[in-house]
Amino acid sequence: MLDDNKIIIAVDAMGGDKAPRMVIEGLEIALKKNKELYFRIFGDSAKVMPILKKMHLLQGNYTFTHTDSVVSSHDKPAEALRQGRQSSLRLAINSVEMGEAHAVISAGNTGALMAMSKFVFKTIAGIDRPAITTAIPTRKGLCVMLDLGANAQCNEQQLVQFAVMGDAFAKANLGIARPRIGLLNIGSEALKGNDLVQNASELLVKHPHLNYCGFAEGDSIFSAKFDVIVTDGFTGNVALKVMEGTAKFLQLKLTQALKESFFAKIGFALLMLFSFLPIKRLLNEVNPKNYNGAMLAGLNGIAVKSHGSADKISFANAVGVAYNLVIGKVNEKIKEELI
Amino acid sequence: MLDDNKIIIAVDAMGGDKAPRMVIEGLEIALKKNKELYFRIFGDSAKVMPILKKMHLLQGNYTFTHTDSVVSSHDKPAEALRQGRQSSLRLAINSVEMGEAHAVISAGNTGALMAMSKFVFKTIAGIDRPAITTAIPTRKGLCVMLDLGANAQCNEQQLVQFAVMGDAFAKANLGIARPRIGLLNIGSEALKGNDLVQNASELLVKHPHLNYCGFAEGDSIFSAKFDVIVTDGFTGNVALKVMEGTAKFLQLKLTQALKESFFAKIGFALLMLFSFLPIKRLLNEVNPKNYNGAMLAGLNGIAVKSHGSADKISFANAVGVAYNLVIGKVNEKIKEELI
Repeated sequence: MLDDNKIIIAVDAMGGDKAPRMVIEGLEIALKKNKELYFRIFGDSAKVMPILKKMHLLQGNYTFTHTDSVVSSHDKPAEALRQGRQSSLRLAINSVEMGEAHAVISAGNTGALMAMSKFVFKTIAGIDRPAITTAIPTRKGLCVMLDLGANAQCNEQQLVQFAVMGDAFAKANLGIARPRIGLLNIGSEALKGNDLVQNASELLVKHPHLNYCGFAEGDSIFSAKFDVIVTDGFTGNVALKVMEGTAKFLQLKLTQALKESFFAKIGFALLMLFSFLPIKRLLNEVNPKNYNGAMLAGLNGIAVKSHGSADKISFANAVGVAYNLVIGKVNEKIKEELI
Repeated sequence: MLDDNKIIIAVDAMGGDKAPRMVIEGLEIALKKNKELYFRIFGDSAKVMPILKKMHLLQGNYTFTHTDSVVSSHDKPAEALRQGRQSSLRLAINSVEMGEAHAVISAGNTGALMAMSKFVFKTIAGIDRPAITTAIPTRKGLCVMLDLGANAQCNEQQLVQFAVMGDAFAKANLGIARPRIGLLNIGSEALKGNDLVQNASELLVKHPHLNYCGFAEGDSIFSAKFDVIVTDGFTGNVALKVMEGTAKFLQLKLTQALKESFFAKIGFALLMLFSFLPIKRLLNEVNPKNYNGAMLAGLNGIAVKSHGSADKISFANAVGVAYNLVIGKVNEKIKEELI
C-alpha cells in the first residue's frame, strides 16, 4: 500500500478560500522541493482536473478521487461529521486511516477537520484532547506554540500533554534536538499566575523527558528564548489573533504613513521602488498566519491544517510541515515521551 | 484644601527608569496643555529640586515634599507596603486620601502602587478587586482594555464589574457617550469559549446600564468595533505583552530588511531621509506601551500608572489621562453603573 520511498499526503483539494487552484499549484511547488512526495487528491473532478492536468511535475505523482460532496466553511463540525461522509475532507482523512497515506492536509473548515480527524483517528493513548500546534516566527528561527484554540478549558495534566506534543513537533518539524519549553504566564517569577499554570509548572519541573525552562511571558514568544510555548486554548487563541491583528494594524498604519507623510510628494515614487514592496512583503512574512501549517497534535494520524486564506506558496509550506512531521515521526516521539 | 479651579495631581517623582528627570519634564509638558493642572510632588530634594527649579511653567504650580525613602522597582509589594510608609509613592497616595490632591501618578513599581493604593483607598463598594485599565490604539481611535494583569484568576461577577469600570473609563478619558463593550473570547459565535466567558456574557446581556455588544476576538481589539474590551487579568496581560512583542519584533525585522535588502546600496540613504525615521517613529507610536497612562480602576481614589520606561512626552500623556479621569468623574460614573 504505502511505497517505502514515498511520503504520501492525502489532500482535500476543496478546502480554502482559493481552492482548488491554490491547493493544486501548492502541491506542484511542494513537490519541487521534496521529490519523495506523492499525493492522494480528493475533490470535484470538474473543478480540480483542468488545473491538475496543467501541472508538469505532478504528473505520475498523484492519484485523484472524485467526489461531489464538499464541507463548506460555514458547516458546523457536528453537521459535517454526520453529513460529510463522502466529502473530499473525510475521504482524505479516511485514506490515512486505511494506510494509504501518511498524513492529511486541508485548508478548509477547522472545526470539521478537528471533529472528523478525532472521530477517525482517535486520540493517542495518554492524550486527553488534541491541540492545535504551529510554529511562529521569532527574532531567530521559529517558536512552536500550542494550544491555539482547540480547548477553551484545560487542566494541568492537559498542559503537560501539550508540552509533550509541542516538544515532539519542534523535534520533528524544526529539527531541534532538545527543545526549550516555556509555560505562558503573566510574569516570569515562580509565584505569578493562576492555579492552572502553578500546578502545571510543578508537574513540568518533575517531568523526566522534557527540557522545561519555566514561565514565558507574552512578549517572550518572539525572544527566541523558548522553542515551545505551552498554553491553554483560550489564551493561545487570543494570543495568536492578537499577533495577527497587531501585524495587520501595523501594516495598515505603515502604508498610511508612507502615503500621507510630508515627504510623500517627492519620496513616494522612490519608496514604491525601493522599500514599499519589500516592506509589505516583510510584514506579510512575519504575520504568523503566513507561517502556514498547523498540526492537530495528539491524534493517531497526522492531520495538518493550512490557513483558509493561504495562497499557493503558503499552502506548499503547509505541505512541507506535513512532510517534516511524517519524516520526523512526530507521533512516535509523542508516545515515547508520555509518562 | 482643594482649589476648585485646579486639578491637583500627586506625583511620585522617583518612580520610572528615567526618574526624576522625565517626571518633572513631563509635568512641564502636561501643564502646557492643561493650564488648570497643579502638582504635589514627592521625592528626594537633592535629585528633584535642581531639575524642578529650571522649569518655567511649573513655577507657582506645585508644592514639593522631600523624602529620602523610595520604593525600588525590585521591592515586593508586601515589603513596600510595610517598609515604604515614608516613600515618595506612599506620601503621594496619602495626599489623595487626605483630600489634598484629586489623583496620584507614578511610573514606579506597579505591584507596590497597586498594594498601597488598595490599602489606602480601599475598593469601591460593589467592586471585588481593582483592574488595570488602559487605552490601546486601533484603526480608528482608541480601545479601552482591562484587566491587564491585576487579577490572574477572575469570576464572572468580576468580569461584569470590569465592564462597568471600562465603560466609565471610556466615558471619562475618551469622551465616548455610549461605549460599545465586548467580551474577549476565542470566537464571536454565542456558544464559543469557556464557562467563565459564557456566564459573564449572560450577565452582561441583562445589565441595565451597559451597551454590551457580544464577544470580541483577539484581532478585533484593533478593528474599532468595540470601545471597551473586557477580559480576565491572565488573558489581558498576555494579550498586551503579545502586542508589545509583535510591535517590537516587526520594528526589528523592518530595520533589518531596510538595511539588508538587495536595493540597500542604492536605496538606503534615500530611505533614511524619506522613510526610515518616520517608520521608526510610527512603530513606536502604535506600540501600546507608548499609549501611556493606565488606571488602577475600582478604588476610592484615582491612581494612574505610567509605563516605567516612559520618556517625558509619554509621562505627560499619562498625566493627561489622570486629568481626564478627574474631570470626567470616573469614579462617580462607576458607582452610578454598579448594580
